[in-house]
Amino acid sequence: MEPLDYLVIASHPDDAELGVGGTILLLKEHGARVGVLDLTDGEPTPHGSPAIRLQETRAATVVLGLDWRGNLGLTNRKLVADLEARTKLAGIFRQLRPRTVFAPYWDDAHPDHVAASALVDAARFWAKLTNTDLPGEPFHPQRIVYYFSVHLRLHPKPSFVMDVTRHIETKMRALACFHSQFIAGRSTAPPTFLDDLRDRSRYWGWAIGAGFGEPFVCREEIGLRGLRDLV
Amino acid sequence: MEPLDYLVIASHPDDAELGVGGTILLLKEHGARVGVLDLTDGEPTPHGSPAIRLQETRAATVVLGLDWRGNLGLTNRKLVADLEARTKLAGIFRQLRPRTVFAPYWDDAHPDHVAASALVDAARFWAKLTNTDLPGEPFHPQRIVYYFSVHLRLHPKPSFVMDVTRHIETKMRALACFHSQFIAGRSTAPPTFLDDLRDRSRYWGWAIGAGFGEPFVCREEIGLRGLRDLV
Amino acid sequence: MEPLDYLVIASHPDDAELGVGGTILLLKEHGARVGVLDLTDGEPTPHGSPAIRLQETRAATVVLGLDWRGNLGLTNRKLVADLEARTKLAGIFRQLRPRTVFAPYWDDAHPDHVAASALVDAARFWAKLTNTDLPGEPFHPQRIVYYFSVHLRLHPKPSFVMDVTRHIETKMRALACFHSQFIAGRSTAPPTFLDDLRDRSRYWGWAIGAGFGEPFVCREEIGLRGLRDLV
Amino acid sequence: MEPLDYLVIASHPDDAELGVGGTILLLKEHGARVGVLDLTDGEPTPHGSPAIRLQETRAATVVLGLDWRGNLGLTNRKLVADLEARTKLAGIFRQLRPRTVFAPYWDDAHPDHVAASALVDAARFWAKLTNTDLPGEPFHPQRIVYYFSVHLRLHPKPSFVMDVTRHIETKMRALACFHSQFIAGRSTAPPTFLDDLRDRSRYWGWAIGAGFGEPFVCREEIGLRGLRDLV
Amino acid sequence: MEPLDYLVIASHPDDAELGVGGTILLLKEHGARVGVLDLTDGEPTPHGSPAIRLQETRAATVVLGLDWRGNLGLTNRKLVADLEARTKLAGIFRQLRPRTVFAPYWDDAHPDHVAASALVDAARFWAKLTNTDLPGEPFHPQRIVYYFSVHLRLHPKPSFVMDVTRHIETKMRALACFHSQFIAGRSTAPPTFLDDLRDRSRYWGWAIGAGFGEPFVCREEIGLRGLRDLV
Amino acid sequence: MEPLDYLVIASHPDDAELGVGGTILLLKEHGARVGVLDLTDGEPTPHGSPAIRLQETRAATVVLGLDWRGNLGLTNRKLVADLEARTKLAGIFRQLRPRTVFAPYWDDAHPDHVAASALVDAARFWAKLTNTDLPGEPFHPQRIVYYFSVHLRLHPKPSFVMDVTRHIETKMRALACFHSQFIAGRSTAPPTFLDDLRDRSRYWGWAIGAGFGEPFVCREEIGLRGLRDLV
Repeated sequence: MEPLDYLVIASHPDDAELGVGGTILLLKEHGARVGVLDLTDGEPTPHGSPAIRLQETRAATVVLGLDWRGNLGLTNRKLVADLEARTKLAGIFRQLRPRTVFAPYWDDAHPDHVAASALVDAARFWAKLTNTDLPGEPFHPQRIVYYFSVHLRLHPKPSFVMDVTRHIETKMRALACFHSQFIAGRSTAPPTFLDDLRDRSRYWGWAIGAGFGEPFVCREEIGLRGLRDLV
Repeated sequence: MEPLDYLVIASHPDDAELGVGGTILLLKEHGARVGVLDLTDGEPTPHGSPAIRLQETRAATVVLGLDWRGNLGLTNRKLVADLEARTKLAGIFRQLRPRTVFAPYWDDAHPDHVAASALVDAARFWAKLTNTDLPGEPFHPQRIVYYFSVHLRLHPKPSFVMDVTRHIETKMRALACFHSQFIAGRSTAPPTFLDDLRDRSRYWGWAIGAGFGEPFVCREEIGLRGLRDLV
Repeated sequence: MEPLDYLVIASHPDDAELGVGGTILLLKEHGARVGVLDLTDGEPTPHGSPAIRLQETRAATVVLGLDWRGNLGLTNRKLVADLEARTKLAGIFRQLRPRTVFAPYWDDAHPDHVAASALVDAARFWAKLTNTDLPGEPFHPQRIVYYFSVHLRLHPKPSFVMDVTRHIETKMRALACFHSQFIAGRSTAPPTFLDDLRDRSRYWGWAIGAGFGEPFVCREEIGLRGLRDLV
Repeated sequence: MEPLDYLVIASHPDDAELGVGGTILLLKEHGARVGVLDLTDGEPTPHGSPAIRLQETRAATVVLGLDWRGNLGLTNRKLVADLEARTKLAGIFRQLRPRTVFAPYWDDAHPDHVAASALVDAARFWAKLTNTDLPGEPFHPQRIVYYFSVHLRLHPKPSFVMDVTRHIETKMRALACFHSQFIAGRSTAPPTFLDDLRDRSRYWGWAIGAGFGEPFVCREEIGLRGLRDLV
Repeated sequence: MEPLDYLVIASHPDDAELGVGGTILLLKEHGARVGVLDLTDGEPTPHGSPAIRLQETRAATVVLGLDWRGNLGLTNRKLVADLEARTKLAGIFRQLRPRTVFAPYWDDAHPDHVAASALVDAARFWAKLTNTDLPGEPFHPQRIVYYFSVHLRLHPKPSFVMDVTRHIETKMRALACFHSQFIAGRSTAPPTFLDDLRDRSRYWGWAIGAGFGEPFVCREEIGLRGLRDLV
Repeated sequence: MEPLDYLVIASHPDDAELGVGGTILLLKEHGARVGVLDLTDGEPTPHGSPAIRLQETRAATVVLGLDWRGNLGLTNRKLVADLEARTKLAGIFRQLRPRTVFAPYWDDAHPDHVAASALVDAARFWAKLTNTDLPGEPFHPQRIVYYFSVHLRLHPKPSFVMDVTRHIETKMRALACFHSQFIAGRSTAPPTFLDDLRDRSRYWGWAIGAGFGEPFVCREEIGLRGLRDLV
């Protein structure tokens, strides 16, 4: 299989859409190969079921135009960054060989998200080891970029904000695919839950002098080869 | 005159080369129009003179391939961010109309650098005012990026680091033009003063997984339209 | 005259409304005595005049229900934190005797705002001096709180965010009084300039689990006598 | 049972008294319902025993006037934030339904405190889940506030400092109940261990212009509905 | 004259004692040559006069055992970091040739302190210039360390804290020399103003595991040649 | 056995040399007793084996002149900060009784390093407990200092930087002992892997005005008993 350029690791189906949806669309527009790996099926939830969630995920995958989407089969609500999960995820990295990985931000109220973030860090390192019984050849994703799909009202200092102005409507359509999560049982009076999400990305857009934005954080410094993509 | 894309404001001739030299070369390579405005003539110094410094500046200007270089004629060592200097610099912004301005970082041991930084901030704002007696049409440089040519051993947290690996040798040649500042009267035993400068940009290169780097800081968040220039 | 509880110092008429408008309304609701001192008349501007701006200011003053509003008569665009301005402002502090002062945030693109912030700091200290020729009795405003009416796209870490949800519409009406500044000559297509301002305070509202918010920063720590006002 | 307004989670009996003692008294004075849950019995210690510690805890509970005090029965020195402990604590949250939870600060030398902090975060999220076998109805404590009862000499930047000036003597009496922990086997020459604790809260009091203070940190921004409780 | 090792620059007589008193005594004990330069006479004040303040300063100088004390003769309350003051102070640096300079911290409520901090920064740089009409030979103090004698309740993150446990009583005696500033007209009931000062340095002592401390901040990183002086 | 003054805890043999090599040599020069405890054998690696790594470790131990070196026998790549490992390490602390412990920095790409850092924190606390079945007498290492031997391109803000200028060549010799890790299979064209390491410590040397440096971070404030070791 041809390697991916970018792989988004999501704790639950819809986290990638929430935090990286616009950026995925932008990267796709630039010709990159982009995939999403959901670590769990995200169920149970009040209005969802494994079957419904799978169907919703497929619909969102089409809207985003992903090159690959998979599910690691870990247990929702009980995600733990143990050696077994690390082995599984490292194997995926070796198979998909993404140059850049998007991981959940490390600080959150949801224990699955905290565990997922640590799991991605550890598995990325393991993927490059030799003399292991991991499948495939050693591979090291060059970069980890942390995104925000968090259950805390975090006000982070981002390493950079992606200008997703031209892709916000498509992102909103991808989010709307998750009817069981964002629409069912919620008030239909404006601003709706999805209106709120959209409004928030307006702030990040304003912060960079654009329309809509998605914030990202890196542990390492941001290196640029030019200012051609600077807003 | 055709507007500039980038204008570097330097307290003294050689500050632009020190802090932005590699980046200027990179931006030129990308087809941008780049200029440098020196605020003072930088003299007196132990081994320089106005005539020597001017000649050195011209040589460096050629090495960098600048589209424009000027001098605002303020007094070295006595730079003050007063209304008169603000008027002069705002007039230059209206004339050259650069979209992005590189300014000296605001914290430094050299009082000229501290004053220059505040002066650029103030003049940038003034340049957009209507109902003034400033020359030309109102114009607002969209962005200020602060660079490091400092007399403190600052260890800053950069907004981004520019990968100048492919331009480091040319940058060093531009610096070597300032013989009176960086070579005359200094030890010729390695590591020389210029060796030291080069070594330091190795650290910034390492930090972004490249060869050589130049750090920059912005007061506003970094907005990107893609990851194509990400190292 | 009965002392004020709160005094907002604004570089130009409309800055207090922009940064503290909702909070002023909240404080008034709680029975506090609140005033605004504009340092300059804010003119010239593209669509304003001293007479128009004065009329607008009076209208906004009524909407906010201020107990006092004054103008220090300093020169717009040329605000300087010198000893003469310090003397004037310190005299006002002695006269109005506000326990808390709201000052412009210290970092901004507008040089008047930067100067105004330093001026408030200095004048607050001077107001308590004995053996001076300042009018009135020595008085020391106990606290300075910095607000955001800035010309930079700053993304600050606030000391606290005021929940102004119930007052946002009245704040917007106060802002709309400044027709020459926020409406004249601007696009009427949504989102308008005022829509944008409103949207941004949604972000701050979200950050504290409320509808709309205004951020503030203090140089000293926040001390509380209870959690009764905590959102 | 009537829901609590505030619930303090403590690794060991005496941690709540150390970090939140004055604030508990203040909240009680304001009419709130306040409880403390100790996660372990805190034993063995050099001068304590389970029976002694229990007696001391009861005495302190009376001094603080708590509405509820419980013990989760986890093992002292071996506290681990695993799924089993998470289930237990989430059940308590559903039963007591506190609007605000005080949790140990996340950085500490004592591994029990580090584990307890992560445990509270995770259990708070779990408490709101539907479709679980947790007892009671889903419930989500609205806020977590982190307090300092740490074994590191941390010098934190607090989100806010509570003015406990009027309650410091009662807090000291509550601490003195833990004779086995703070008095037995320690020097009686001033400043004693308890004197030291009292002195330290003087610093926090000074920082907010009051007599005595207790510092707190939140991961989210501080939202206020007024300045009536501002020192 | 033999060069000084350390020179403390104080806005007013008593600032050096407040912020660096214990450290001066420690440095003297270690055999260093230490001086203090007061920039103004600190008068008028409610209970002082130039003659009284001079006498008090002389007494404190004796208690500290200073090798040199001078006064630059700038005007109290009207300190401005202009070129004239810069020239004067740079001349002093050339004359006294201190390796390390202690300067007032840059953020404060007192405008004299803010100006003094900027003045020291600028004068230090000027002192090394050649081709000037400054007296003496070019000289560059190698380090600036900022101390805290501030009129804000700042809660700084220090670069290091000096353990002044063994010198706290002598420091208090030096402070008590300034009867007009710290004792006259103030309450004699404990805790007195001086008690408060002493208590505060207890916090800093606690933070480093010692008895009493004085905090300091540097703009550059702290370099050590060993851990022999680490508390 | 005579207690150690300093004990470096390393995840793998060579981490101590990488992050603390120069400082160890400096501390030895000052007469301190210094040891290194490797937590694992660091194998497998592409060019190493347990026997080779052991031989290399012994050679480096001689170059550094260590007073003690041991290996805790935990499993490379699978290091977990569990209670069993904590017990083992706490026992070592009780046996060696080091006043200061150097631990791996807490943030890293290598999961063993992250686990090792948490393990040192926990074991240090456990070492002081009474009423345990740990060997030896209760003992509490007074300080933990975190060093950098990381697999992330971290750009940390250090608590202090050690001047290792005079020991850099010996440190490089100690590193060269690990032929299987730093030389075998790597390019011999300059700059080699070891050249790169050396260059990076030049940056830290520059930052403190010296030749070469090693950065360190502490969670607590830096307390000094004098400035005699200040660069």
